[in-house]
Amino acid sequence: MATLCRPAVSVPEHVITMEETLALARSHHADHPQLPLALRLIENTGVQTRHLVQPIEETLKHPGFEDRNTLYQAEAKARVPAVVRRALDDAQLRAADIDVIIYVSCTGFMMPSLTAWLINEMDFSSDTRQIPIAQLGCAAGGAAVNRAHDFCTAYPEANALIVACEFCSLCYQPTDLGIGSLLSNGLFGDGVAAAVVRGRGGTGITLERNGSYLIPKTEDWIAYDVRATGFHFLLDKRVPTTMEPLAPALQELAGLHGWNASELDFYIIHAGGPRILDDLSKFLQVPPNAFRFSRATLTEYGNIASAVVLDALRRLFDEGGAHDTARGMLAGFGPGITAEMSLGRWQRSDDREPLVEAVV
Amino acid sequence: MATLCRPAVSVPEHVITMEETLALARSHHADHPQLPLALRLIENTGVQTRHLVQPIEETLKHPGFEDRNTLYQAEAKARVPAVVRRALDDAQLRAADIDVIIYVSCTGFMMPSLTAWLINEMDFSSDTRQIPIAQLGCAAGGAAVNRAHDFCTAYPEANALIVACEFCSLCYQPTDLGIGSLLSNGLFGDGVAAAVVRGRGGTGITLERNGSYLIPKTEDWIAYDVRATGFHFLLDKRVPTTMEPLAPALQELAGLHGWNASELDFYIIHAGGPRILDDLSKFLQVPPNAFRFSRATLTEYGNIASAVVLDALRRLFDEGGAHDTARGMLAGFGPGITAEMSLGRWQRSDDREPLVEAVV
Repeated sequence: MATLCRPAVSVPEHVITMEETLALARSHHADHPQLPLALRLIENTGVQTRHLVQPIEETLKHPGFEDRNTLYQAEAKARVPAVVRRALDDAQLRAADIDVIIYVSCTGFMMPSLTAWLINEMDFSSDTRQIPIAQLGCAAGGAAVNRAHDFCTAYPEANALIVACEFCSLCYQPTDLGIGSLLSNGLFGDGVAAAVVRGRGGTGITLERNGSYLIPKTEDWIAYDVRATGFHFLLDKRVPTTMEPLAPALQELAGLHGWNASELDFYIIHAGGPRILDDLSKFLQVPPNAFRFSRATLTEYGNIASAVVLDALRRLFDEGGAHDTARGMLAGFGPGITAEMSLGRWQRSDDREPLVEAVV
Repeated sequence: MATLCRPAVSVPEHVITMEETLALARSHHADHPQLPLALRLIENTGVQTRHLVQPIEETLKHPGFEDRNTLYQAEAKARVPAVVRRALDDAQLRAADIDVIIYVSCTGFMMPSLTAWLINEMDFSSDTRQIPIAQLGCAAGGAAVNRAHDFCTAYPEANALIVACEFCSLCYQPTDLGIGSLLSNGLFGDGVAAAVVRGRGGTGITLERNGSYLIPKTEDWIAYDVRATGFHFLLDKRVPTTMEPLAPALQELAGLHGWNASELDFYIIHAGGPRILDDLSKFLQVPPNAFRFSRATLTEYGNIASAVVLDALRRLFDEGGAHDTARGMLAGFGPGITAEMSLGRWQRSDDREPLVEAVV
C-alpha cells in the first residue's frame, strides 16, 4: 500500500505583506477604473504574507522571458535539493531507493526537465523514471500524488518522489491590467515542496483510490496566454464558482470507495482562493475548520500553485497527524478545469510487520 | 496484459525534399564558413522528404513566439482528432472506454494542455486522467508507451490513449547559425500520431517490461534555450555518439527479462538521425534491416520527435505485423539524455478467450 509521507516545504526569504501589496496596487494602478474592486478582492484573499524569490522591486520589473526563465532555473537548482533531501530523510529513504521522480511546475520551462539535473546532482539511479508535468497548473500537486499512487500500485515495491517547484512571482506581467491579473498579483506566492510516496512502510496517508474530473467546457477559465514576454495568466471571474460542480465529483469518488465525502477525518484541499475553501466547505457540508491546513497555507504563503496541497499536508503532520486509520481526502484544482482527487487513511507507521516477525 | 495497438499517423500536406532543403541552405547561408559541412551533414541524414504544417516560405519566417504558439494550437486542434479517431477505431474502442490520455509534445506550449480540449470535443469521459508531458522531447514517445503500460499494470481493465503532436517546423529559428541548428533545419519534420494501449485484448505489442536510463552528465547535450523568440533547439555534436553508452542499458533491461537484446524479432527505435540507427545496429549487433521501420520514417518524414516510434510501429503493422509471440523492443531517446525502453511480444489478437468459451 503506497504511503504519502511527510512533505518538506521551503519558501523564499523575501516577504511581502498584504499591506505592502495593497499599497503597491494603490500606487501602481492609481488611475485604474476598477482599483477599488481590485483592492477589495486582494483583501478578501486573506493572504497576509507571501514569500518571493526576489525583493519586490526586482519582482515588479520584467527583464524579458529569457532572463525570467534563466532565473527560474537558477532558483530551482538552488532551492529544490534541500526539500528533496528532507523529504527523503523524513521517509527514511536514500536517493537510490527512488524509482520515479514526478516533477510538477508551471512557472518556468526547461528541456530537459529539472529531473535530469536532479538525477545527476543528487545521486539518483540512472534508471529513475522521469515524469515532468508543466500543464496541469495548480492541479498538478494532486496529479503528482495520484500518478505516484498509480506507479506504486503497478510496482508495489517502488518508491516515488514528488517535487513541486513554483515561482509564481516570475509570471508577474506588469502590462496585464485586467481585474483577474490584479487579483492574481496579490494572491500567488512562491514555494518549493517535495514528498515521497513509499510503496511499503512509512508514516502518512496510505493512498487507496484516486480520480480525476474535468468540468466540461471550462478550458479557457484558467489558462496561459503564451507570448514573447512569457506566460500570461488568465483567470476567468467564474473560477470561484467551480466548487458547486466539483463537490459532487468529490462525493462520487468517495461514494465509489464506500465513504461519505462530508464525513471524513481530514481534508487537504488546494487553496486556490478563499472562496474555493468557503464554497467547498458549504457544498460538502464540512465545517470550515476541517480546511484549516489549506487556510493556513493561503494566509501565510498565498496560493503557491501545485505546492499548496503538499504544504497543507505538511501542516497536518506538524499538528501531530491524524489518528490511526483516520480517513481523508486530498484534492488539487487547476486548469481544465481539472480536479485531481485522492482518498486515503492515516497510517502512523508500518511497524506491524516487524512486530509480527518478533512474535513469530 | 497491456497491448499497444496500431498507431494512426498523419503528416501535413506541405512537402519539402532534400534537394529543396539543400538549395535553401546554399542560398540562405552562402557566406557561412561551415556551409560545406552543413550540406554534407544534411545529405547524410538520408531524409528525402519532410512534411510541414505550412509552405516553406511561411516556415522560414518568424512571426514571433506568440503567433507561432497560436499556430501550434490551431494545427493541433485541426490535426489531432483524426488520428485519435483512427487509433480508437483500430483498437475497437470508443472515447468513453479511455481512462487516461497521455499527451506528449515539445514543440508548443498550452495550459491547459490539449487533453482538456480533446476531452470536451471528442466525448471522452469527464473522469479521464490527463498526463501531458512536454519536457522529454523525442524520448516522450517511448515515455508515453511506458506510462500507459504502468497505468494498465496498476489498473488491468483500463485503456490508455497516447497522443504525440510534434510540429518541429514551428521551432525553426532563422537566427540560429550553429552547425547543430543548420543540421536540425534539414532533419526535423512535422507529424501527429495516436495509439491506444488496451488493458485487455487488442492486436499489437503486449507490453511486458519497461525501463528508463539517463546517461550521466549529458543534460546539456540536447536542450531548449527558452527565449522571447520561443524555443531554440541546442544539439551538441556528441549526441550521435550516445548509442555506445545506451546499447548496454538496452541489453541490461533485456537481460532482466531473460532476453538478449541482440536477438529480438522486431525493433522500434527512435530515428534521431542516421548515426543513431547505424551505431545502435553496430553496438547491439543487430542487422541494419531490423531497423527498417525507423529508417523508413527518417527517410520519408524526417525526425518527427516523439511521434517517430509510433510511426515506425505503424510501419510494422503495415508490413503485416510479426509472428505470434515474436519478441521485440521499443525505444525512444531524447533530452536528459534519456532512453525510454520497452519490451513486449507480438500478439495477433486476443481471441483465445472466446475460443475457450466456445469449447466450454
